[in-house]
Amino acid sequence: MADFRQQALDYHEFPVPGKTAVCLTKPAETSMDLALAYSPGVAEPVREIAKDPDTAYRYTGKGNTVAVISNGTAILGLGNLGPLASKPVMEGKALLFKHFANIDATDIEIKHDTTEQFINTVEAIADTFGGINLEDIKAPECFEIEKTLIERCNVPVFHDDQHGTAIVTTAGMINALEIQGKKIEDAIIVCMGAGAAAIACMTMLIKCGIQRKHIYMLDRKGVIHSERTDINEYKALFANQTTKRTLRDAIAGADAFLGLSGPDVLSGDDVALMADKPVIFACSNPDPEIKPEVAHDVRQDLIMGTGRSDYPNQVNNVLCFPFIFRGALDVRASKINDEMKIAAVHAIADLAKQSVPAAVLAAYPDVDALSFGPDYVIPKPVDPRLLSHVAKAVAQAAIDSGVSVLKSLPEGYMV
Amino acid sequence: MADFRQQALDYHEFPVPGKTAVCLTKPAETSMDLALAYSPGVAEPVREIAKDPDTAYRYTGKGNTVAVISNGTAILGLGNLGPLASKPVMEGKALLFKHFANIDATDIEIKHDTTEQFINTVEAIADTFGGINLEDIKAPECFEIEKTLIERCNVPVFHDDQHGTAIVTTAGMINALEIQGKKIEDAIIVCMGAGAAAIACMTMLIKCGIQRKHIYMLDRKGVIHSERTDINEYKALFANQTTKRTLRDAIAGADAFLGLSGPDVLSGDDVALMADKPVIFACSNPDPEIKPEVAHDVRQDLIMGTGRSDYPNQVNNVLCFPFIFRGALDVRASKINDEMKIAAVHAIADLAKQSVPAAVLAAYPDVDALSFGPDYVIPKPVDPRLLSHVAKAVAQAAIDSGVSVLKSLPEGYMV
Repeated sequence: MADFRQQALDYHEFPVPGKTAVCLTKPAETSMDLALAYSPGVAEPVREIAKDPDTAYRYTGKGNTVAVISNGTAILGLGNLGPLASKPVMEGKALLFKHFANIDATDIEIKHDTTEQFINTVEAIADTFGGINLEDIKAPECFEIEKTLIERCNVPVFHDDQHGTAIVTTAGMINALEIQGKKIEDAIIVCMGAGAAAIACMTMLIKCGIQRKHIYMLDRKGVIHSERTDINEYKALFANQTTKRTLRDAIAGADAFLGLSGPDVLSGDDVALMADKPVIFACSNPDPEIKPEVAHDVRQDLIMGTGRSDYPNQVNNVLCFPFIFRGALDVRASKINDEMKIAAVHAIADLAKQSVPAAVLAAYPDVDALSFGPDYVIPKPVDPRLLSHVAKAVAQAAIDSGVSVLKSLPEGYMV
Repeated sequence: MADFRQQALDYHEFPVPGKTAVCLTKPAETSMDLALAYSPGVAEPVREIAKDPDTAYRYTGKGNTVAVISNGTAILGLGNLGPLASKPVMEGKALLFKHFANIDATDIEIKHDTTEQFINTVEAIADTFGGINLEDIKAPECFEIEKTLIERCNVPVFHDDQHGTAIVTTAGMINALEIQGKKIEDAIIVCMGAGAAAIACMTMLIKCGIQRKHIYMLDRKGVIHSERTDINEYKALFANQTTKRTLRDAIAGADAFLGLSGPDVLSGDDVALMADKPVIFACSNPDPEIKPEVAHDVRQDLIMGTGRSDYPNQVNNVLCFPFIFRGALDVRASKINDEMKIAAVHAIADLAKQSVPAAVLAAYPDVDALSFGPDYVIPKPVDPRLLSHVAKAVAQAAIDSGVSVLKSLPEGYMV
């Protein structure tokens, strides 16, 4: 990994530091250009917005911007390294927003002492943007932060580590269970990890048909059960009445395993105990909960996904967040509600069932010939159809659920 | 003006709303690109910055970014219209930062109840950026805001309405007084207006040689004098012991007039009372304190400047702010101190004395043939030499005054 490490540092440093810049969408060459862009011309949109705040969407970039905001308390799998150290991740997210959905994203790293200060800071700057993507904020604070900001802000607020992960994981899991011939309402699932992403994933799976009593969630101390007294209110929602205590107890007979924890916590012996035709999503990155080679060695009837691009079935948030914001911004949704999230789940899941057009394969030489099956339960991040499929479904769901300013899709939207 | 109004609105609305966007400075096409830009590659700069925060300048865009921040309490000459209405102005400023100095500026509009909340919000997000440009914040709150943020932030904080205006005005005034054969230490100046810009201009003129006792500052109630009890601590610094009470009293025998107030407050009769070879900078925009035609009609020995591009001697902040930040960022100055501001004054003033190269005139067809004299006391905003002249002088002053991380100018800097 030494070479890759240096390559990653060089990518960030040269030829200019960072990954994004500002560019102009209007001419700024002549004195007349400048008179329109700044004084005295700029007074005209100022007056319009003062009269009608809605015109900010006509005369400023607000409607196509998202703030990518972190405090650096849970950076990737690296932990609490502070706001400044999170900046490369937030700039990376901004790069993905632009590349995949042409959204102008600005990273903001926030220094704070209390959760309330963080919330107040985001609230104070929120109107600058068309939406807010929260990122790499540790649990359980992230729950209160997101909930409060959704209440206080006029623009969509979305914690991607929770909901982006949940949407993409659920889309893949629905498809994998279908391929394995399992009914979602009967499927037993073990969730290794009980952080924000894990709780969001299980919540979304329940909304899509998994039964709460069929979920075994584990934290560092083992299975979360109804007799535990050391768990917060969020984990407590998943405290089953069960005698299972260990991963080994839980995995026996399980249909599916979702790993959102750390490397190599699942053994081949564990996998051997799972039900017929199991599904394993081992999403710890870069080192999964179990290596695909090890798991496949034990079980040939397995469907396996990871967070990595070098194995089949990459569970990657980039399948969702650029497009859910694209759809929300395009119809000026005031929030990203459950209806929109569920629409995104099904749009992503459905896309994997559609044949990949030859033109797409040709344009993306690193996409293999792909068809719905054990090695292709979820679209590839480079699939350009994601934009129209997911954004359109999300925008329509926003309209249908009554949270959008636009009351119908614009003529020819995403066709 | 109806056509110009519509033209300004159209400029802001079409083909896309606003004036700036985000663009990528690194490739994002292949899976490998994305692996370097985001997961897993991004973990490497994260780890480096966690170990040494200084490396944020190597691996992120921080060092070339400026936040343009307002609360909308004093938008142009339009007053307190709120944060959202200030957005077109802040985006315009971002456009100017990029166009003139290749600085990536992000606008942030802040909603707040108290001055302390505004300060806390800026402080909380400050580390995201390489510098902070405060804008359109009303007096007297702007003084406390700037002072406190300079103390609390690790990056330069600069209130352009105060110091940008002061630097450009002082540069022009020094040159105009010189052309008129007046010694700066003897010049009597009337300042119409007592807001943030006026106070900053007079403060800077004093640093450059004007005597405090030679300044007559007027607010809405007339001359600020030592018997006034209705003035704040900032105006009080300019309370002279004088029997002058009105503009007419003050203007009689004055060498110079600076208008930072409103349209048509200075009459031809007032101008007739000024000393020989007077200087008038009537900077109210778009309608100056006296129309140049009216003033020149009364006095043929006059040098006149305005805030407008359609008359000679435009006093325009864009002569300074892109370049003072360019210099500060390039040597990583921790603040923009008086030494740097005064270096900017002299760099701008000196440039007006240099002959405009033919190539420059050819490249900028809207620049007339210009030479130092009554109709050219200050460079044109489109003069591309401003970048190297001002940024280099500011960077050197930062080094010499010990506030920069770099201890000498980079090899070949701005040559």
